[in-house]
Formats: sequence, C-alpha cells, structure tokens
Amino acid sequence: MQQATISNSATSRLSRNHLNDILQRVGLYEDMVRVEQELIARIESRTAVLRAAGAYTVQSGGKRLRVMLVLLAARLGTYQFDRAKHPAVAIELLHAASLVHDDLVDHAGSRRGRATVHMTWDRDVALALGDFLFGLAARELADEPDPRIIGFYVHAARCMVEGELNPVTMVEPRDQAEAQYFRKIGYKTAVLFEAACRSGIAVAGGSDAAVAALGQFGYELGLAFQIIDDILDMVESEAVLGKPAGNDLREGTITLPLILAAAVDQSVILRLAVAGNVPAERVPEVIACIQAAGGIDAAYEVANACVARGLAYLAPYATNDSYEAFAAIANHVIQRRH
Amino acid sequence: MQQATISNSATSRLSRNHLNDILQRVGLYEDMVRVEQELIARIESRTAVLRAAGAYTVQSGGKRLRVMLVLLAARLGTYQFDRAKHPAVAIELLHAASLVHDDLVDHAGSRRGRATVHMTWDRDVALALGDFLFGLAARELADEPDPRIIGFYVHAARCMVEGELNPVTMVEPRDQAEAQYFRKIGYKTAVLFEAACRSGIAVAGGSDAAVAALGQFGYELGLAFQIIDDILDMVESEAVLGKPAGNDLREGTITLPLILAAAVDQSVILRLAVAGNVPAERVPEVIACIQAAGGIDAAYEVANACVARGLAYLAPYATNDSYEAFAAIANHVIQRRH
Repeated sequence: MQQATISNSATSRLSRNHLNDILQRVGLYEDMVRVEQELIARIESRTAVLRAAGAYTVQSGGKRLRVMLVLLAARLGTYQFDRAKHPAVAIELLHAASLVHDDLVDHAGSRRGRATVHMTWDRDVALALGDFLFGLAARELADEPDPRIIGFYVHAARCMVEGELNPVTMVEPRDQAEAQYFRKIGYKTAVLFEAACRSGIAVAGGSDAAVAALGQFGYELGLAFQIIDDILDMVESEAVLGKPAGNDLREGTITLPLILAAAVDQSVILRLAVAGNVPAERVPEVIACIQAAGGIDAAYEVANACVARGLAYLAPYATNDSYEAFAAIANHVIQRRH
Repeated sequence: MQQATISNSATSRLSRNHLNDILQRVGLYEDMVRVEQELIARIESRTAVLRAAGAYTVQSGGKRLRVMLVLLAARLGTYQFDRAKHPAVAIELLHAASLVHDDLVDHAGSRRGRATVHMTWDRDVALALGDFLFGLAARELADEPDPRIIGFYVHAARCMVEGELNPVTMVEPRDQAEAQYFRKIGYKTAVLFEAACRSGIAVAGGSDAAVAALGQFGYELGLAFQIIDDILDMVESEAVLGKPAGNDLREGTITLPLILAAAVDQSVILRLAVAGNVPAERVPEVIACIQAAGGIDAAYEVANACVARGLAYLAPYATNDSYEAFAAIANHVIQRRH
C-alpha cells in the first residue's frame, strides 16, 4: 500500500490524467469533455442560489468514473454520442444529488477538500439542491426512447435511499456482518455503477443479456470502489482525502476492515470501535489495531476479488479495446488513494 | 364566507363525500378507488421505517384532487384506466414527496391534523422518505410510452423546488408583489395541477393543443387552490385546518390577502406583518385588520377569477360531462374549508 506523500490536488491531477489517458486510448476523451460541458450547462436555474450551489457541487472535481463507465459500455455496442450522453449526464446528476443529501444526513463538513453544500449555504439549500439535481437527472432521461434506461436509474435511486437507512450494526457472526456490509455498500454505491454500465450498453442497442453482464461488472466494481473508500478512510491523511481521516470510526460506522479485524482480534479497543464508542483521540490506536490484525490487507483482497469477478462478466468482450479500458479503470479503483 | 363550526375529520368526510359524488356522476369512482389501492401498494420497501413513514404519509387523508384531475382529463380523450392509472399514482407520490420535504424546510409540526414525518420519526427519515417517494413517482412513469408525460412531471418537480426557495419579499409596489406571489404559488402548487391535467389528456391520446388547454386550466385551478389555502390559513381554526391557524403570518410568509390589504391599509401592524415581525399574540389582530381592509374578500375574488379563466380553456369540452365535473371540482376548491 502506498503512503500519502503528496496533496489532494496533486493526486487529483495525477489520477485524472491517468483516467484521461485510458479514455484517449479508446478515443473517448473528446466525448468525455463534451459530457462535462453538457453537465455544467444543465445547472441552470432561475433561482440564483440553486445555480450557485449546483455549479459548486457539479464542478467539485469528481473523477467522473460513472460517466466513463456509461461511455465505455456504450462503446461495446452501436456507439452514438447523442444517445449515450443523456445517461452519462444523468448518472453524474443523480450521483451529485445523492452526495448532497447524504452529506446532509451524515452531517459531513467537507467533501473533496471543500465545505459541503449545507455548510456553505444551509440545510434548506442542500435539501432543495438535492431535489433539484434529482429532477434534472430525470429530465435528462425523459426523452430517452428505451424505457429500460429510466428503470435502471430509478432502481439505483431507490436503493441509494434505502442504503442510507440500513447501517451495519454488528461484526459477529462474521457472515451476517459481511452480509449487512455488502447490502449497505451495494445499495449505497454499487447500484449506481451498475446503472451506469447497464444504461451505456442499453442505449447502444445491447441485448438484455449484455445489459445483465455489464450490470454485474458494474456492481462488482462499485463494491470494490466502496471497499477501497472505506480502507482509505482509515489509512490516508486528511490532506489526501479532502475530508477528515478516520471519520467512519469516529462516527461509529462499521466497515469491512473493522469486521475482518474483529474476527481475529477480540481486544477491548476494537470492541469499543464496534460499539461506536471510540473517543476521537484513540482513533489512530484503533486503526493501528485493525492494520495489525490484517483487516486492511484482507479488505484489499476482498476488493480485488470483486474486481476479478466483475471482469469475468466481461469475458465475451475480451478482444474489444473497451475491455482493456474497463480493466484499467478497475485497476485504478483499487490503486487509487482518494 | 362560512365559519368553522365542525371538526377537521367531519369536514374531511363531508368534502370527500362531495368529491366522490362528482366522480360517481361521471363513472370514475371505482377507478379512483383502484388508484387508491395501487398507491398504497406502491409504498413497499425492504426498509421498515420507509414502509411505515411512507404509509403514514400516503394514507394521511388527502383529498386526492390531483388524481381526480388526471382521471377526468383522461376521460376527455380515449380513456384507458391501465394507461391513466400511472400518472394518477405518480402525481400523488410526487405531491407526497414534495409535502414531506417542504414540511422539513418549513419546520412544520403538523399537517392534516397529524404530526409531520420529521416530527414523528426524524429529519433524516423525512429527507430519505421524500427522495424515496420521488423515486417511486419516477418509477411509476418509467414504462409510460408517451415521452411527454415524464417531461410534465419533471417540469413540475423542478418548479416546486424553485418555489420553495423564492419567497415573496414585499407588498409594494403592488404589481411587483403580486408578480412575486403568483410566481411563488405557480411554482409551489399550480405546476402540479397543470401536470395532472396535462398528463391525463396526454395518456388518453390528446393532441398538443388539448394538452396545452388542459394544462392552462390546471394551472389556473392550482393558483385558485393556493390562494384559498392562504385565505384559510387566516380565517379557519386549527381544528378545521389540521395545522396551527395564522401560521403564515407567524412565519413572516407574505400571501395575497396581506398584499391586497396592505394596498389600502398602511397601519403599523400590517407593516410589522409584512416585515415578518408580528408577535404570535398579535396575529389575530393582524388578521382582523386584513379582513377589515377587504384583503380576504379581494383574495376570494382573485381566486374566482382564476377559476373562471381556467374553465374558459375548457370551452371546447363544454358538452362533455367531464366539463361539469371539472366545474364542480373548481367550485369545491373555492368553497372548501381546509
């Protein structure tokens, strides 16, 4: 595992360059730029505060991974930018809507190195902005002739809401704890990766079988993404994360490294962590225990296994150069530092 | 103007009976009952709190006016229940979503005589439930083959969000104050009545011209509905309203009766009301001033004018018995007491 030595903005730049290279190689970079422009153009409102908070949110330096998945999946079928751009824009709007509302529920003070919307404006603006972005996402799909597409997005949106209300409550028995955790991150994160991949191949004329395979790849990739997120929350510095490190432990949120560590280490401090009762100053000690018990390494292994399972669903496309791009993105998801 | 002499539940029953009679006369009562059943069936979730809070919200005794408008509008074209039921269910889900989030923003303690969702559960549940209901509404429209329909709903959803963030800030100059007020209630309320009427005629194969006419009727009816709501907030008792009376004045919300009264009465107490600085105990005094200055009667006149303008858009359907039902509903909107 790499250690944090450079700042958030520097790693942001590096990882964006890396992702752009992947897109360049399959000739999708220009289209990605066009999606970015369309996305920014969508945040128009007669209401000044929505316009400002919308632009602040959408231009906050996300990596647009989900957009890439839509375009790459579309490239496996009959690629038409004018069809693919709508789910591509919509996925990012829906993602933004869910982040704004999640940050509100979680009382998060910062994201991607900047104050969250409810901190910069207020809670009412964050509530309204989330609704507004959700509406924009639906608008983006309204003219899409394939009725499957909006179904994918609505499924994801419903699951994300349910994910927010279904916490992990235990670390043992381990199989039940893992089931809770995978349900939680499936709802919270993987369903949107799934929707991105499904909608991309669907607008490119993909069969139901192709949609199912891409969806399963996306879902597994999303699981891996969230596992890595949960690992990084423990092992990276605030400067790299763009938000306070060790946040999950302070908030009493049980994630995979803790579940896996608790299976081999029954110490009092980990029991406190499970109960959500760790004083802030002891969080580094908890992380050291989790690391010593192999919880971090084991979680990395689980994420790698998700990616491997996901890529197996793409076997029918192994000779397409989009496959290589998917594999490179999957690799990036595992290797990323924030 | 009638005075409040009976309780909320009794007037609820009376007005629901009256509306049911209107539907019986055009043979839509059974379909209304079926929409009600479908609506309740939709509130299914793997998450217990969403299921409970969803049922609580959807079964809270609303009058289902918007559903009636969908069905009646559909009846002007080629009526098919299996097509019309989707926008009918969706309109009520979207309405419920917006009420839950509005109550959250407005810190409302009660609605329709019952504690609001964020009071009964908490703010996080209210936020999630609104998102969930919004998602259910989108789901309901996902399989609708006419792409216009979801466009109508998305337009309404966006406007409702903007309405929540665009308060009326002045009472003079009167024309500007009225423009602010009509924009506010247009966004907040009339757009959803408009969407109901548009979608009903559209699923019944209505032309764009028919959709436009029905939409304009719905919009005017929605304006009238909100003007009456704002009047009732001043003149009805808490027992009848199901929420505290005089709430708008206490919250510093400027509505039409105040704007119209302030045009003829420059007294200090009304200036305080405009500034949102009326102490709770002086609210009855403010209402007496507004009434004495003719603000209530003048607002009733404006609402009547909206209804008249709205019905004029339906002139092409004057011989259809749906027209009579629309007129009866419009009459109910004006005469209603809560």
